[in-house]
Amino acid sequence: MSTQRYKLTIAYRGTNYYGWQTQGVNPTWKGPMPPQGQGIPTIQEILKRSIEKVVLHKVALVGSSRTDTGVHAKGQVAHFDTDKTMIPIDKLRQAVNAKLPGDILVRAIEPADEYFDAIRSTVRKRYQYVIWNAPDRSPFFNDLYWHRWQTLDIAAMQSAAAQFVGTHDFASFAKPGHGRANTVRTVFDCSVSYRVPRLVIGVEGNGFLWNMVRIIVGTLMEVGQGRVPTEAMTEMIAAKDRTAAGLTAPPQGLYLQWIQTADRSNATAKSDEIPPQDE
Amino acid sequence: MSTQRYKLTIAYRGTNYYGWQTQGVNPTWKGPMPPQGQGIPTIQEILKRSIEKVVLHKVALVGSSRTDTGVHAKGQVAHFDTDKTMIPIDKLRQAVNAKLPGDILVRAIEPADEYFDAIRSTVRKRYQYVIWNAPDRSPFFNDLYWHRWQTLDIAAMQSAAAQFVGTHDFASFAKPGHGRANTVRTVFDCSVSYRVPRLVIGVEGNGFLWNMVRIIVGTLMEVGQGRVPTEAMTEMIAAKDRTAAGLTAPPQGLYLQWIQTADRSNATAKSDEIPPQDE
Repeated sequence: MSTQRYKLTIAYRGTNYYGWQTQGVNPTWKGPMPPQGQGIPTIQEILKRSIEKVVLHKVALVGSSRTDTGVHAKGQVAHFDTDKTMIPIDKLRQAVNAKLPGDILVRAIEPADEYFDAIRSTVRKRYQYVIWNAPDRSPFFNDLYWHRWQTLDIAAMQSAAAQFVGTHDFASFAKPGHGRANTVRTVFDCSVSYRVPRLVIGVEGNGFLWNMVRIIVGTLMEVGQGRVPTEAMTEMIAAKDRTAAGLTAPPQGLYLQWIQTADRSNATAKSDEIPPQDE
Repeated sequence: MSTQRYKLTIAYRGTNYYGWQTQGVNPTWKGPMPPQGQGIPTIQEILKRSIEKVVLHKVALVGSSRTDTGVHAKGQVAHFDTDKTMIPIDKLRQAVNAKLPGDILVRAIEPADEYFDAIRSTVRKRYQYVIWNAPDRSPFFNDLYWHRWQTLDIAAMQSAAAQFVGTHDFASFAKPGHGRANTVRTVFDCSVSYRVPRLVIGVEGNGFLWNMVRIIVGTLMEVGQGRVPTEAMTEMIAAKDRTAAGLTAPPQGLYLQWIQTADRSNATAKSDEIPPQDE
C-alpha cells in the first residue's frame, strides 16, 4: 500500500471554535464550555476527527495558518497522509463533509506530492476584514463583521493603506509574544473598498505576524475617524514598537481569504526560506 | 404621571433562542443549556429584561408573532407600557439596544395610542424563506438559510405558489396541535424569486397557522424537485388534512419580514375580528 498526501482547502465560520489550533488556555474564552474531558473545540481537531472517521486510521492534520478564536476562513489550506487511496477523491470530500458540523466545509481535496507541506509550501496569503458601517448593528451578521457606526474618511484610509505595501519590519504591528525572531514581511497589497454598508480591507503578503492584519485594520479605522493622520503609517512602521501603532480590531471581521502554495519545483527551490506560521 | 404605550419593531437572529416565547419544553432543543434556574432563553424574555433595566420597573411585553426556535425576524412588532415618558425616544432605543446581546436589535420605538395592541392591531404580515441552492452548504450562513443542493424547476414552483393566493381553509398546511378553531386565512402574495445561489419564497397574508409558511415552502420544494405536480396545490388545500401536504421546511431559513398594524380607527373598526396569534 502506498501513502498519498492530500491538500485540503477549507472554509469555516470561526465563531464557535477556539481557533484553528489550541495555543494554550485563553482566559477571555466566552464560548460554550466543552464536554468533560474533551477540551475546547478547535477547527483542526474537529476536522481531524471527521477525516479519521472516513479513512479509519489516525491522521496528522497540518494547517497553513493558525487562525485565532472567532476568525473565519474561506481558503485555509491543510494536508494529511493516508494509504486509503482507493477512495475516489470527490467521494472522500463528500464523506468528510457529511461528518463535519455545518459551520466547517472542505471546499476541495486534491492529491499533492510528498514534498507539499501546508506550512512550508505557502508563498502568499490574503486576508480580508469586513466592517459593517451603519448606524445600527446587524443582528444577523454580528459574528461575521465588525460593527462601526462612525462616518469614515475612506480616501484617507486608502492612502494610509498604501503605505503598508512593500517589504518592512512589521514589529509595530505584531502582538507581543508572537515569538518570531524575524519580523520582516512583504505586503503585496493593502486596499480599502466600500459598498454600503460593508467596508472591506484586503491585505496580501508573503506571511503575517500574530494579529498583524487586525492591528493594521484597527489603525486604518483610527485614520478613517480622523484620530491618526494619514501619513503616520510610515513612522509607525519605523518605530518597531507595538505601542506606536493603533488598536487591534476584534476577530469576528477577519477572513483568511486564500493561500497560494508552491508546486513541487517551487517548494524545493524555496526550501531554505521557510515562511512563518502565523495568524 | 401618565402612562404611555410604545410600539417596538425588532430584528433578531433566532439561532440561539428558544423562539420568541416559550411554549412548553421542546424535547428537540439542541441549543446551549440555560444557567441554573433561569430557564431556556427566549427573545421576549431577553428583550423584556433589557427594557426593564432602562425604565426601572417591570413591564409586560406583548409580541405580535410567536416565532419558533431558530426562526429569524426583520420586523417583529411588540408593545409595552411605561410612565417613564421623560426619556427621549431615540435615547430609549439606544439604551435598550446597549443592554441587548448582538443578535437582537430594536430597529424602532414609537409612541402608540392606548388602543394599539401588537396582537389585535396586526392586519397583514410577510414572511420570507431563504434557500441556499448550491452544491456545497455555506459555513457562514448555515443558520440563516436552508441548504438544498438539488436543481430546482423554478417555473413549476412559481405556478404552484400562485395557487396559495386567496382565501382558503389552510388546515392541510398547519401543524396538528395548532389549537385554532378557524383555519381560514387569506394569502395576498406567494412568490418565488431566484438570484443564484439564493432562492427566496415570500408569503404575505392576514395571518398564518402554526408552521404554515414552512409547510408551504416544504411543499413547493417538492414541486421544484418534480416529486409533486404543480397543479396539486389546489387539491392539497381542498383535502383539509395535514398528511395531504408536503414536508415542513426547517426553521433556519424563515424570516418574519414585516408586520402591518392598523392605526386607531382601523383597530377599533376591526375589534370583532381578532387576527390569530401564530407562527
